[in-house]
Amino acid sequence: MALPVETFFLQPDSEGTLQTQIRQLVAEGILAGRFRPGEKLPSSRKLAQHLGVSRITVTLAFTELLADDYIVAHGRSGYFVSENAPEPPQFPAKASETSTVDWTRAIGQRFITPDVMTKPADWSKYRYPFIYGQADPALFDAANWRLCALEALGRRDFDALTADYFDNDDPKLVDFIARQTLPRRGILAKPDEILLTLGAQNALWLTAQVLLTQRRTAAIEDPCYPALRGILEQSRCHLHPITVDQDGLPPDALPDGTDVLFTTPSHQCPTAATMPMARRTALLEKAERDDFLIVEDDYEFEMSFLKPPSPALKSLDKNGRVIYVGSFSKSIFPGLRLGYLVGPAPFIREARALRASVLRHPPGHIQRTVTYFLSRGHYDALVRRMGRAFHERRNAMDKALADHGLTVAGSGSFGGSSQWMRAPEHIDTIELARRLREKSVLIEPGHSFFGQSDPPRNFYRLAYSSIPTARIADGIEILARTLREMT
Amino acid sequence: MALPVETFFLQPDSEGTLQTQIRQLVAEGILAGRFRPGEKLPSSRKLAQHLGVSRITVTLAFTELLADDYIVAHGRSGYFVSENAPEPPQFPAKASETSTVDWTRAIGQRFITPDVMTKPADWSKYRYPFIYGQADPALFDAANWRLCALEALGRRDFDALTADYFDNDDPKLVDFIARQTLPRRGILAKPDEILLTLGAQNALWLTAQVLLTQRRTAAIEDPCYPALRGILEQSRCHLHPITVDQDGLPPDALPDGTDVLFTTPSHQCPTAATMPMARRTALLEKAERDDFLIVEDDYEFEMSFLKPPSPALKSLDKNGRVIYVGSFSKSIFPGLRLGYLVGPAPFIREARALRASVLRHPPGHIQRTVTYFLSRGHYDALVRRMGRAFHERRNAMDKALADHGLTVAGSGSFGGSSQWMRAPEHIDTIELARRLREKSVLIEPGHSFFGQSDPPRNFYRLAYSSIPTARIADGIEILARTLREMT
Repeated sequence: MALPVETFFLQPDSEGTLQTQIRQLVAEGILAGRFRPGEKLPSSRKLAQHLGVSRITVTLAFTELLADDYIVAHGRSGYFVSENAPEPPQFPAKASETSTVDWTRAIGQRFITPDVMTKPADWSKYRYPFIYGQADPALFDAANWRLCALEALGRRDFDALTADYFDNDDPKLVDFIARQTLPRRGILAKPDEILLTLGAQNALWLTAQVLLTQRRTAAIEDPCYPALRGILEQSRCHLHPITVDQDGLPPDALPDGTDVLFTTPSHQCPTAATMPMARRTALLEKAERDDFLIVEDDYEFEMSFLKPPSPALKSLDKNGRVIYVGSFSKSIFPGLRLGYLVGPAPFIREARALRASVLRHPPGHIQRTVTYFLSRGHYDALVRRMGRAFHERRNAMDKALADHGLTVAGSGSFGGSSQWMRAPEHIDTIELARRLREKSVLIEPGHSFFGQSDPPRNFYRLAYSSIPTARIADGIEILARTLREMT
Repeated sequence: MALPVETFFLQPDSEGTLQTQIRQLVAEGILAGRFRPGEKLPSSRKLAQHLGVSRITVTLAFTELLADDYIVAHGRSGYFVSENAPEPPQFPAKASETSTVDWTRAIGQRFITPDVMTKPADWSKYRYPFIYGQADPALFDAANWRLCALEALGRRDFDALTADYFDNDDPKLVDFIARQTLPRRGILAKPDEILLTLGAQNALWLTAQVLLTQRRTAAIEDPCYPALRGILEQSRCHLHPITVDQDGLPPDALPDGTDVLFTTPSHQCPTAATMPMARRTALLEKAERDDFLIVEDDYEFEMSFLKPPSPALKSLDKNGRVIYVGSFSKSIFPGLRLGYLVGPAPFIREARALRASVLRHPPGHIQRTVTYFLSRGHYDALVRRMGRAFHERRNAMDKALADHGLTVAGSGSFGGSSQWMRAPEHIDTIELARRLREKSVLIEPGHSFFGQSDPPRNFYRLAYSSIPTARIADGIEILARTLREMT
């Protein structure tokens, strides 16, 4: 039977070249069982005419399909669906009709938390996105990233791409981190003290699982990164929030019996405070005296465009009490999902075994691409470019905030990518964010950073990592006006 | 100061083009603080001569470094390290001197298991690698994988590559799985019933966490995939191993009080048994009667080159009792780390929340690359090519095993990628594997698939997924000879 040419049509919103689309529509038809082995395809001339594409495009698509044995050519008779083509399923697909399972009972452990940060996925369509933690297409070095990714897809890197590493990592990346990345933070570590993770989130999660139990006590900063609080609540440990001040976490406020402290000394999240050296020393001394461990999330240290960054807390750690969390996802892009843990070998061994059980290892291609991006110097060039742009945006934001008399609650003295803001007491920033969104302004309400059941609702975060300098003043003006309207 | 040309040298084992290597050695020198701002680089002529490369190569590397502001050009005076170049650390790097932490006490939960499967990372250097679960460079469609990866790196896919999806997945991939992949297994599912995971391992881990507690009972097959046993032991549930027979898991052997059963009906791991339809129906009826859940790892169904695959157990599930685990890592390559979970929405919601807490989401680039690889039909073409090659290898292996009178304990009647073998009672296959390795033959001892503390040691797995057909007979001959020597 000849397949009528009318069965073939290009989807208006399809992607890829025309050749790819034609390949795809034939392959999909075969896989779905609409085109059967032995059936004759329209001639390339007819199909080209019908689809409104050039004949050579159809011919090239057919050549690919021939090579993969989806179709065969019978001399002058034309092309036919191959007898060896993949077979459609022999059975109809069915959905479960109704569930007789009582899922309230069947679910043994619950992980859904009521308050999840939600950001609109289409944030880039907003005119004033003071949104945090997404890549800026205007700054990202896509060309070199592509080159590095392509190199990592090459024949020489076949094993790095495809192999099951079991519980190991790409040795080249571990080596680069040990020789180049960590020394820039004042840290020397051996390969068995380093573990690659699926971003900082995964590093914090692994650490919490290894170190905490229901009988142990963790201290966290308040306010802090909400996902960290979620991780610790899941571990069911006792949790002590410590209110931070303009210098970050005050060591004296730590309660007796703390087993593990989670802290962000470089750039407190979200207040942007940097912990001064005296406090760092005091914190390490207290850890030694009271025998607790410190997990340092070395958050945003790269964005130090106002002053050089301080060395990491880990670099002052004589006694192997600090576990260090680093991330490439922040400065390259968050969708990358690559970070790392640095800590004493006995700890890293357990974290490695847990990681192997949970997910084996971060995908090989990503590890190798990052290795190239780092070792060719593209990473540092990118961080510098981001720093320059952020500096300019920060200046524009500081000026606009001052012009409108808005209150900055916490400001990164060495740089960063956001300002932590305080609105007047009576303002609910959830409502503020809702109203602003209608005016194409995105801000982040601050309540979810706090641990209390009844958090303050007048804080918010204003990031400048994804908004062009030229739009900052107008965006802040709308924000100021909306705040006045709510008063 | 001028930097002496002797400071520059190319590493003999370096990777990348010469231009890339020169870029890298200059960038690394600057990042490490060996080359300081204002210092003069050797002229391109001099450096080219010293390194033994063409001058244009050096000039092109310098042009890249100029663009990234690592170096500046001062007219006819030459190139200098830029004042804006990234700065080396201002502080020396230090290692923790000694650890005062008692790690035996500090580690709250232990995850290291004594018996981890170890395979030599350099397996491809062995002449007879009867090794399981690694990609075969002779079969993998690297060219089209590269094209799909490159397309997913393009400007149009910037968001898919870079964005923080929080707890979501690439909608295009979820859509393809729902419309094309699952119907081929007889399953209809909605997007909120599908979750992407870091491979099947991660899918099984998430499932165990959501469904099991210390008070619940899981049943597993014996022998089974050792990493699954590890996952369940970590969940601290009660664990019942059920001995499988030639038809896989016998439903009658399931103990009362089972909450969750983990099974591999398509292709029992490692015995390769396929569960017949009558047993599948009986199992589903029992699950409904006794109110337990079934986790179906739809293992290796793609490798059905002897008979068409049966529909998945999930496709017979009227009552929403089956949670389905699929993987692309097996048939594309294991380093990919991409799989998926299909199950009722209330279950998927919890698994999604847990995944978000543990790692957020699988990297965006990998999801989009797989989307293209699937939708262009390359995936099915690859599976077919692998099936043809495995068929040929399987025939060669069956013949060689028969020629030498070796005992097959379990054989995939529809295909698969390995044979489950039984050596005479007194043979310890750990010792057998050790001896064979010296003769460049890799096999996998079978003890770690069993749950007992004193497992049978005379089983082993022989895979044909990574060995060329032409070497199978010789490899089996060495195996047979070594077995005779040990008798």
